[in-house]
Amino acid sequence: MSKAKKIKEPIILITNDDGVTAPGIKALTEAMIGLGKVYVVAPDKPQSGMGHAITIGHPLRLSKVHGIEGVETYSCSGTPVDCVKLAVDVVLHGKPDICISGVNHGANHSINVIYSGTMSAALEASIESIPSVGFSLLDYSIEADFTAAKIYARKIVEFVLKNKNLDKHLCLNVNIPAVDAKIIKGIKVCKQAYAKYEEKFDARKDPHGRRYFWLTGEFKNFDKSKDTDVWALKNNYVSVVPVQFDLTHYELKTKLEKKLS
Amino acid sequence: MSKAKKIKEPIILITNDDGVTAPGIKALTEAMIGLGKVYVVAPDKPQSGMGHAITIGHPLRLSKVHGIEGVETYSCSGTPVDCVKLAVDVVLHGKPDICISGVNHGANHSINVIYSGTMSAALEASIESIPSVGFSLLDYSIEADFTAAKIYARKIVEFVLKNKNLDKHLCLNVNIPAVDAKIIKGIKVCKQAYAKYEEKFDARKDPHGRRYFWLTGEFKNFDKSKDTDVWALKNNYVSVVPVQFDLTHYELKTKLEKKLS
Repeated sequence: MSKAKKIKEPIILITNDDGVTAPGIKALTEAMIGLGKVYVVAPDKPQSGMGHAITIGHPLRLSKVHGIEGVETYSCSGTPVDCVKLAVDVVLHGKPDICISGVNHGANHSINVIYSGTMSAALEASIESIPSVGFSLLDYSIEADFTAAKIYARKIVEFVLKNKNLDKHLCLNVNIPAVDAKIIKGIKVCKQAYAKYEEKFDARKDPHGRRYFWLTGEFKNFDKSKDTDVWALKNNYVSVVPVQFDLTHYELKTKLEKKLS
Repeated sequence: MSKAKKIKEPIILITNDDGVTAPGIKALTEAMIGLGKVYVVAPDKPQSGMGHAITIGHPLRLSKVHGIEGVETYSCSGTPVDCVKLAVDVVLHGKPDICISGVNHGANHSINVIYSGTMSAALEASIESIPSVGFSLLDYSIEADFTAAKIYARKIVEFVLKNKNLDKHLCLNVNIPAVDAKIIKGIKVCKQAYAKYEEKFDARKDPHGRRYFWLTGEFKNFDKSKDTDVWALKNNYVSVVPVQFDLTHYELKTKLEKKLS
């Protein structure tokens, strides 16, 4: 790497799934000030639970909007994954040095990684070999305190920018407990817990007598080991789970080769 | 297991992402006749590319519709993942013996597994410890020939029903090449190829002069090994990739533990 390249200001792309006006993305943007040239490309409306959805049936809109002073900010009519694709192809005309997503209002530990638009945006970047991190705070409130999230987001982004070569598709799922920054014990690298929602639909009738259903559920942790994100968060650590997009179940593959091929 | 339980007819839940009226789901339903009691719960409109999206911001509708003779069929206003959740909680009031998804009109090999509503429905079932299989045919056409897909779907479902104990969260991603059944060489258990789309947005102007963007892209395979789904399909095998929902990158976890904790 040339010396000139080394001192070039890193390009930081920020997105989220709560929408461009959410307090969480404002907090994350503020936390990056001074670390590089920041761009925000985020959905124009809440996109929680969108998973890795992309928009193929209709076209996308992209509008320059007013964001934080000095930060080029765009709102996009698509999903978080669409935002990453559009940002790379249409806004940046190339890959940023890092793509960060969040700070999500609410947890994305354990199985939530699968449903989360925040994490899918990060995973999309990593597919493109852009180092990425998704940040989530365990507080759904619009008035959540992002102080600790900002401290750890900055710390982790600085770490990733210095350690990009750890993996070609580096992607981290970071969750921050909803406690005062002073109470947080530090960072814990974890695995994804097997914890999930036990769904129950709330069936109602509309004014015309037709049934409709609201998705509800209770979160349950089935994973009692101490190296999971759920354990770390319960014990006031910031959890960091490195994630990947190769879904191959290699152990089962070996078993099946003997039986099915 | 009691004898009574052994002879109980298996419950087969079918869903897809192309919608309840797609030829692919009709073909899959027909292929299951005689294997068990079949229920269809599928989206009321195309939901391709929806990934693991769930509907949390508004309620869901579920309507009984006319399907194949003798098969209870429902159309649902939600995503493929919503369909699985609703089917288990509201239609079946319990878990089926297997959940199958498809036959998708178009490939879901390699990175497509992440974007695919077909595969997300199957993965959702596996999270609930329901053995599941997603089927996709490498032919987008509404008039695609599902003959080979039906033969292999039946074969693989029979195998899974007999081998449920192979994994607590058994989930298979099955792709069928778009060739005559006689040309297919058999089944190949594979890993997910690192192959992806090189995106390019087609920028246009609407009649009012405002820009909009269509997602387009070219598929590129970066994985030259012979144990991938892309290789198998190119060589006229039915590809079977066992997939999992634990996204933890364990190798990177070990590296990070030394550097970040």
